[in-house]
Amino acid sequence: MIQQPKFSSEQIDYFMQVALNEAKLAETDGEVPIGAVIVKDNVIIARAHNHREADQIATAHAELLAIEAANHLLSSWRLEDTALFVTLEPCIMCAGAIINARIPSVYYGAEDSKGGGTRSLYQLLEDDRLNHRADVHTNIRGAEGGALLQNFFKKIRLQRKLGKK
Amino acid sequence: MIQQPKFSSEQIDYFMQVALNEAKLAETDGEVPIGAVIVKDNVIIARAHNHREADQIATAHAELLAIEAANHLLSSWRLEDTALFVTLEPCIMCAGAIINARIPSVYYGAEDSKGGGTRSLYQLLEDDRLNHRADVHTNIRGAEGGALLQNFFKKIRLQRKLGKK
Repeated sequence: MIQQPKFSSEQIDYFMQVALNEAKLAETDGEVPIGAVIVKDNVIIARAHNHREADQIATAHAELLAIEAANHLLSSWRLEDTALFVTLEPCIMCAGAIINARIPSVYYGAEDSKGGGTRSLYQLLEDDRLNHRADVHTNIRGAEGGALLQNFFKKIRLQRKLGKK
Repeated sequence: MIQQPKFSSEQIDYFMQVALNEAKLAETDGEVPIGAVIVKDNVIIARAHNHREADQIATAHAELLAIEAANHLLSSWRLEDTALFVTLEPCIMCAGAIINARIPSVYYGAEDSKGGGTRSLYQLLEDDRLNHRADVHTNIRGAEGGALLQNFFKKIRLQRKLGKK
C-alpha cells in the first residue's frame, strides 16, 4: 500500500528551504531558478536543480532529475513512500513523471499559471482515470520560490536591454 | 519559425517500422515493447525503446530517451524541425516532454485508452494555453504496435499462471 508521508510544519519548511537552495544554485549557473528534493523516511534522498541550458536537454527539469537520482539510489523506479518538494508548480512533463514514479505527496512553492500541470492548467495528479494519484500541497514558501524567478527574469530583461546578451 | 516536416506515406511507413523494430528490442529485454524514433531532414537522428525495468528509472520511456538522445546529438534542447514516431500513444510525461522539446509533429501507433496524453485522456499537444502545440497523427501501423503489447502482456499473464514469475 502506498503511504502518504506526514511531516511537521518545521519539516516542510526545512525541505522546501533545501529546494530553494537548489534553485539558487541553478541561478548561479544561469539557469531558470527551480529546485527540487525528494524525501523518504524523513531524509532527503535526492536533490536537483534545473539544468536545461547547461545540458541542452529539454527534460532536465529539477523534478525529473531528482526523480531519476532517487530511482538510482533506491534501485527502483517506484518511489511509493516518498515526497517531492519543488519551488515551482510542476509542468505537465514533471506531473507525468510524478505519476510514473508513483510519488504519493507533492509540495510546491509558486504557482505556474502558464504551464502548471498540477493545479493551474491541469490537475493531473488528481485524475481518477489514471493508475496513480498524489496529494498536492500548494504555496509552500511560494513567495520565496516566485521571487527567485521574478528576479531572474527581471535581470535577464535588463541584460537584454543593455545589450549584454 | 517552427517547420512541420512533411513525409510521404512510404516514409511514414518506414519510420514507424524502425520504431516497431525498437519495440521488439524492448521485448527481447523483457521490457514493455514500445519504441520511438526522431527524424530530422528525413533522417533518423535518434531511436530508443522502453528501458524502465532494466534501468529501474521511472522516466525511461522510449520517447523520453529518444528526445534526450536527439538533444545530445544536436547539442540543443530545441527539436523544432523534427518529428517523433512512437508505437504507442505518448503518456502524460512524454506529451509534456514533446512540448518542452518543441517537437512539431508526432506520429503514433496504438491508442492508450488508460494513459494516453495526446488523444485518449488528454489532448495535451493541442492546448492553446501552452507555449507549444504539435500536429498529432494517429493510428500509424497501430494494429502492429498494439499487437506487440497484447502479445507481451498475454505472455506475462501465462508465465504468472504457470508460476514462472
